[in-house]
Amino acid sequence: MRLRLDLSYDGGGFAGWARQPGQRTVQGVLEEVFQRYAPGAAGGLTVAGRTDAGVHASGQVAHLDIEGDADCADLRRRWNGMLPADVRLTGVRVAADGFDARFSALSRRYAYRVSDDPAGPAPLRRHDTLGWRRPLEVDALRAASEHLLGEHDFAAYCRRREGATTVRALLRLDWGRGDDGVLTATVEADAFCHSMVRSLVGALLAVGDGRRPVEWPAALLTRTVRADEVAVAPPHGLTLLSVAYPPDHELAARAAETRRLRSVPIGKGDI
Amino acid sequence: MRLRLDLSYDGGGFAGWARQPGQRTVQGVLEEVFQRYAPGAAGGLTVAGRTDAGVHASGQVAHLDIEGDADCADLRRRWNGMLPADVRLTGVRVAADGFDARFSALSRRYAYRVSDDPAGPAPLRRHDTLGWRRPLEVDALRAASEHLLGEHDFAAYCRRREGATTVRALLRLDWGRGDDGVLTATVEADAFCHSMVRSLVGALLAVGDGRRPVEWPAALLTRTVRADEVAVAPPHGLTLLSVAYPPDHELAARAAETRRLRSVPIGKGDI
Repeated sequence: MRLRLDLSYDGGGFAGWARQPGQRTVQGVLEEVFQRYAPGAAGGLTVAGRTDAGVHASGQVAHLDIEGDADCADLRRRWNGMLPADVRLTGVRVAADGFDARFSALSRRYAYRVSDDPAGPAPLRRHDTLGWRRPLEVDALRAASEHLLGEHDFAAYCRRREGATTVRALLRLDWGRGDDGVLTATVEADAFCHSMVRSLVGALLAVGDGRRPVEWPAALLTRTVRADEVAVAPPHGLTLLSVAYPPDHELAARAAETRRLRSVPIGKGDI
Repeated sequence: MRLRLDLSYDGGGFAGWARQPGQRTVQGVLEEVFQRYAPGAAGGLTVAGRTDAGVHASGQVAHLDIEGDADCADLRRRWNGMLPADVRLTGVRVAADGFDARFSALSRRYAYRVSDDPAGPAPLRRHDTLGWRRPLEVDALRAASEHLLGEHDFAAYCRRREGATTVRALLRLDWGRGDDGVLTATVEADAFCHSMVRSLVGALLAVGDGRRPVEWPAALLTRTVRADEVAVAPPHGLTLLSVAYPPDHELAARAAETRRLRSVPIGKGDI
């Protein structure tokens, strides 16, 4: 039986999602708990977004295969009781037929929070908000973002892995300033290559504070390799908000289609 | 010259506001910075709300007397550059004549955040949100809160100090559930005695989860001493949001009036 797991975590205390020897990772902490208490957990976790060290999630999705039946409410309660406070299972349920947390996903949505208050981020939100020393123009951020929408080769914004495609469909990239003055970028794509959200944000911040023209981020889309002049924004401003899936009856077909499109092996950092 | 300072801090790393030997306190950290760089700082800080260990603030107000003139923008920039990230000066300005951060204040407003999600608080907000294991009824919380409004002797909810009055005017106490499911109590009074907000919240949570009847918190107002059966809610859910002051021309009169009403010395924990 396959379980769908919905997850929330504070990335500050983790060396990213993926299990690594000798490191505290989200996957490592979860799999340790599942090994201690799971009715026949077979194999490890498959995740929708392999977040980097320091990146947070409020709507991460993973799947876990177990043998036999399970009482999902009971599992969720027991697992949360064993997990540390910086990672929570917000949902545990039996996955629909054909569900694959990674390959069935239609899109991933992230938020990036930036404060350009000269005093720095509010102390209580400093763990998930980047402080920016120069004032940021929302209109410039928005204008530059619009030119990036659609399907492009985002090679300039990716840490290229051998043979992996860097063509992605950017479905949404917009900016808003909240009542607290904090700027939030909402970024959605079918998938992201490694460090792509943070590279896009890094390029856009250079426009927002006036160091680069509005046209610059889109002009980089002609590049076929990573653009070294793009700064990768720090991880702690970034949170994976949600993962979108098709209706249940389309899950298997979507997974097959994604596997076909990504038949060239993609790197471990790909999200 | 008197400066008005607006402050924001994460209380998690502080043993409260008030300077104490050998402890890291908000006042202690600030005064150390002011001693290192201030044009003739005379005396220490006077604060509107002396928050307890672990209590946060987004809108704390204090005043500092200095000798001679000052460039407020420059002071704010320099001081923030010297302060740690868990305390920020959001405003530094010349105080109006008659301004006293403590005695001119008309009221203080606090928020208390509680999550009754069985999975616990969202990891990124676990530092300023209490987790509650039993489901909470907003209607019960609201009904019980209404009966507490107005001027009462809140002795049942105060850690009594010798000779200090425990009569307070509770101006607002209401509850809302946000889109994220978190319950927030907004509490405003002319002033609060020691641990009063957290005691009120502790009593109301016992109503909200069904252990006490709706009438119970108000029934305790007949007591003349602290009610031991009221649990004091943990500090990390509590944040001082704002302090209200009268128009400038009434500041001095308000301060004189408050001093007269509170002519009996009040304890150091009084906020």
